[in-house]
Amino acid sequence: MTTRTNTVLGTQGVMESSATQQARAARARYRRGECRPTAGIAPGMTQANMLVVPKEYAYDFLLYAQRNPKPCPVLDVSDPGSPSTALAPGADLRTDIPKYRVWRDGELVDEPTDATKAWSEHPDLVAFLLGCSFTFETPLRRAGIEVRHITSGRNVPMYRTNVQCRPAGRFHGELVVSMRPIPGDRVAEAAQISGRFPSVHGAPVHVGDPAALGIADLSHPDFGDSVEIRPGEVPVFWACGVTPQAAVMASHIPFAITHAPGYMFISDVSDTRYEI
Amino acid sequence: MTTRTNTVLGTQGVMESSATQQARAARARYRRGECRPTAGIAPGMTQANMLVVPKEYAYDFLLYAQRNPKPCPVLDVSDPGSPSTALAPGADLRTDIPKYRVWRDGELVDEPTDATKAWSEHPDLVAFLLGCSFTFETPLRRAGIEVRHITSGRNVPMYRTNVQCRPAGRFHGELVVSMRPIPGDRVAEAAQISGRFPSVHGAPVHVGDPAALGIADLSHPDFGDSVEIRPGEVPVFWACGVTPQAAVMASHIPFAITHAPGYMFISDVSDTRYEI
Repeated sequence: MTTRTNTVLGTQGVMESSATQQARAARARYRRGECRPTAGIAPGMTQANMLVVPKEYAYDFLLYAQRNPKPCPVLDVSDPGSPSTALAPGADLRTDIPKYRVWRDGELVDEPTDATKAWSEHPDLVAFLLGCSFTFETPLRRAGIEVRHITSGRNVPMYRTNVQCRPAGRFHGELVVSMRPIPGDRVAEAAQISGRFPSVHGAPVHVGDPAALGIADLSHPDFGDSVEIRPGEVPVFWACGVTPQAAVMASHIPFAITHAPGYMFISDVSDTRYEI
Repeated sequence: MTTRTNTVLGTQGVMESSATQQARAARARYRRGECRPTAGIAPGMTQANMLVVPKEYAYDFLLYAQRNPKPCPVLDVSDPGSPSTALAPGADLRTDIPKYRVWRDGELVDEPTDATKAWSEHPDLVAFLLGCSFTFETPLRRAGIEVRHITSGRNVPMYRTNVQCRPAGRFHGELVVSMRPIPGDRVAEAAQISGRFPSVHGAPVHVGDPAALGIADLSHPDFGDSVEIRPGEVPVFWACGVTPQAAVMASHIPFAITHAPGYMFISDVSDTRYEI
């Protein structure tokens, strides 16, 4: 793989949008080792969660995703052994994410910025790319709804819940959610806008009291950063693509590679492709 | 299994809708051997396409469905060997569809009204239930858009096309579409209404000239019945859940059981569950 990218002509031979150029440039930076959360990067381009498991576990996970489509909306599945994806021709899933997590028997053992070495341990790894709520943040912001973690330059806050996903084969675990504080008079609109994107978590799973999800303290997220909740704002919870990592932990999957929460794969696909 | 159904209290212990009662009654009739297309039966209840394959082929098909979500929107997947589905507790997938097809090496070899015997040949069959365009016919009709095959008491016309699906493992084959003639001034609304149901094929894949899909003659559908196209009407094509049967044929899958086109599984799930 080289890091040279053609910033004028795309794979279809047409002028590329500057958003696609931004996506390619971001992946090239991550490939060179840059490590920072991807929220707000290449706005309008689809970002994706990733779970990589040996082929032996691929059916069980694909079924887990089918049974839990809100937290696990599958956008693409690689062929066994291939680090390529139809979502971004030329991208290398082993290097183009800013930060990875390597899991053994459900334990987090490493957080490299390059997964090439871990990836080489198994000949038949299958990569699942899953929709990410960042996709509906662009239309939320366009509608004038502030996305607090972006305006405050932080990672989105994510929480484990007491809601169990529907199990499938060897996969089970709890739902993980992301949270955005929304003014009470914009909650309905936020639900409508995000609901038009069912492939990237869709409408919220819960609005209001975090205790109903078993979340004790919003100021201490399990992943990402906490954000301020201002008077008149309601915490709104969306299903989150970190849910597969919770399943890897709960199910003690022998080997897995994932993205690090908030450090996503940036694809060449426009967010609008997933809008209903 | 008994054919006695409780028509007052449902599994949640609440009063059931008459639509659920109609769904249960229809399944009971099919279980006793009644054989007729299900279009217009139990309006408002989700109908489903079915593909059943040995576990060995389940991952490849689930991936085929993920890669071709418009023709193959998965609503439920059974556990290996189980003829039950979460879409209708108490239903038996071996008997509760009015007509089945049994396939060997991609050849249609039988069309029984009861699949118990064929099902007993393999201990680990996995049943896939896929969304059906009948789900958006109720809201189309509610909006005053005539659904011709229902008003004329026929099966929906379905056609093989020259559009190839994205292959996955051992599955490949062409897209199959259903067709409904729609007045030119209602096409946009029909697209919008069906587009709100992405889990049941969603918006049309093509509007107008059938030759663009490689369809030579609309009056000779490959499956189902032909319907009249009146002056001012445009043929509108939706991805169809018979597409897996085309894949079984093209891919010479050694063994499969499906529903017969137009003879669907009627579930206990309200169509509204799949509306965005």
